[in-house]
Amino acid sequence: MDIRTYEIHGFTEALIENGLIVPTGIAGAYGRGPVFEDILRRFDDLVTRTAAPDNAQELMFPPILARALIEKVGYMDNFPQLAGSVHSFRGSDQQARELSARVHAGERWEDLLAPTDVMLTPAACYPVYPTFSGLLPAGGRLVTVMNWVFRHEPSDEPTRLQHFRMREYIRVGRPDEVVAWRDAWLQRGLELLRGLQLPVDSDVASDPFFGRAGRMMAANQVDQRLKFEILCPVISREKPTAICSFNWHQDHFSGKFGILNADSSVAHTACLGFGLERVTLALIKTHGYDPADWPQTVRAQLWP
Amino acid sequence: MDIRTYEIHGFTEALIENGLIVPTGIAGAYGRGPVFEDILRRFDDLVTRTAAPDNAQELMFPPILARALIEKVGYMDNFPQLAGSVHSFRGSDQQARELSARVHAGERWEDLLAPTDVMLTPAACYPVYPTFSGLLPAGGRLVTVMNWVFRHEPSDEPTRLQHFRMREYIRVGRPDEVVAWRDAWLQRGLELLRGLQLPVDSDVASDPFFGRAGRMMAANQVDQRLKFEILCPVISREKPTAICSFNWHQDHFSGKFGILNADSSVAHTACLGFGLERVTLALIKTHGYDPADWPQTVRAQLWP
Repeated sequence: MDIRTYEIHGFTEALIENGLIVPTGIAGAYGRGPVFEDILRRFDDLVTRTAAPDNAQELMFPPILARALIEKVGYMDNFPQLAGSVHSFRGSDQQARELSARVHAGERWEDLLAPTDVMLTPAACYPVYPTFSGLLPAGGRLVTVMNWVFRHEPSDEPTRLQHFRMREYIRVGRPDEVVAWRDAWLQRGLELLRGLQLPVDSDVASDPFFGRAGRMMAANQVDQRLKFEILCPVISREKPTAICSFNWHQDHFSGKFGILNADSSVAHTACLGFGLERVTLALIKTHGYDPADWPQTVRAQLWP
Repeated sequence: MDIRTYEIHGFTEALIENGLIVPTGIAGAYGRGPVFEDILRRFDDLVTRTAAPDNAQELMFPPILARALIEKVGYMDNFPQLAGSVHSFRGSDQQARELSARVHAGERWEDLLAPTDVMLTPAACYPVYPTFSGLLPAGGRLVTVMNWVFRHEPSDEPTRLQHFRMREYIRVGRPDEVVAWRDAWLQRGLELLRGLQLPVDSDVASDPFFGRAGRMMAANQVDQRLKFEILCPVISREKPTAICSFNWHQDHFSGKFGILNADSSVAHTACLGFGLERVTLALIKTHGYDPADWPQTVRAQLWP
């Protein structure tokens, strides 16, 4: 057992023993106990208060998304390994009896299903871009969403979840507006997290593009400094965990959804997202399993 | 256009015009605007305050569930038409290129996927039952969860959503304890909703079991009075909408998960669930599109 494995097991066991998480038998899909949820919600509220002066418009989408949208944004080209496609049964009485018989015989039955019009939302910001289509008001727009996000990467590492919550802010406007907003929030995010006494740093980063072609796309993304992350040691010091990320998409979404600035130039978009479970785990790892024992300055911000 | 169609279209259009919902192009999966979300959360808070004396344990599960659990509880026998199975890509570089080529050619690509270990959660209470396994403390247990619930029944009717939120309470204990709890909550639920001036009534009900055999199961369920609903006119007076439901499962889940009372007898379970989007729509339909104009006694309870 190497040090990394040891740390994962020790941390997970302590989270379970302290009632912070509840095993479900599925890797990366544990239940969250009341104290875990309280920390998560308090942090989300702190982000909301921090962002309040910006007057973001708040929208809520279900954790499912149009299949056509996933196809349109190129997700199946870039991240097919992470996608979750939703399939359902639309057969007859007789086929239903066969399905049921196969379940009871321990045989596979999923070939009796057909794809639906929806997939699991892979990024909380995706449903927002189509709502920007057309001419933007001067100054662009700012939207915030919180949503469950699915990534098919089952793992026993407690920060690598199959389904988790992201609090995102999505900015659309002129390139200079969008980049200034991203830069300001990178600083604001670091200050917010350091204010909670988390040992965080930022770095350029890349998305987990699939396969050999994907490695080149990831290298390009780093070269162009399109993605930044805020990292915090949770499982290991050597490989800190990304708990917040910043993506500048340039005209990727605006081109696809016809999003134009007030002067009819093509808009740019950027987003930032806090991984709410990861921030929660970073706080627990840094300050301990019982929030009652956390430093008073940290408690004062989360439980004001 | 019959009256029912007229009412659906008129109501949906007014919801959109007032910024309460945001179309996504997918039936039963619209976005929720900030006012809709505020009403929904305020109602959920009111339920939490009403239930506070009961000291329910609060758990949170992701909206995905172990496939093995769906199989074990018999969901594919009873409701195969509603289930959502999650499928992912686990192929090679070459297969990924084929997948991508098919997406761009407008061809179907889902046969390149394989079933994962998870499905979409079809009822918020399902992940809770396995956590009851073993000997219960005297008096049983009470848990509350809020979760997104998937039902594959795409519809333009705004109260019939594919993915929606349920606030549930789950009681496990002796049969007499469980039935007394259910009966008390049926009264409490009616009072809570009537206190918000909703024109509600309760009735025995049945689940949407699949096919011909299902019709008999539904009839049995009604005969045994195992399911009750609280109904409120939203789309039509003739067919009011179920906004809250109460299920007494007898030993269905306890038998499968080995849940025993402190005296080693087999436990019973019951649950109740508020359909949070449906309650929100019922409030909007009853009191108007702008909560600022709602009756003062209703506002005082939701925005105390």
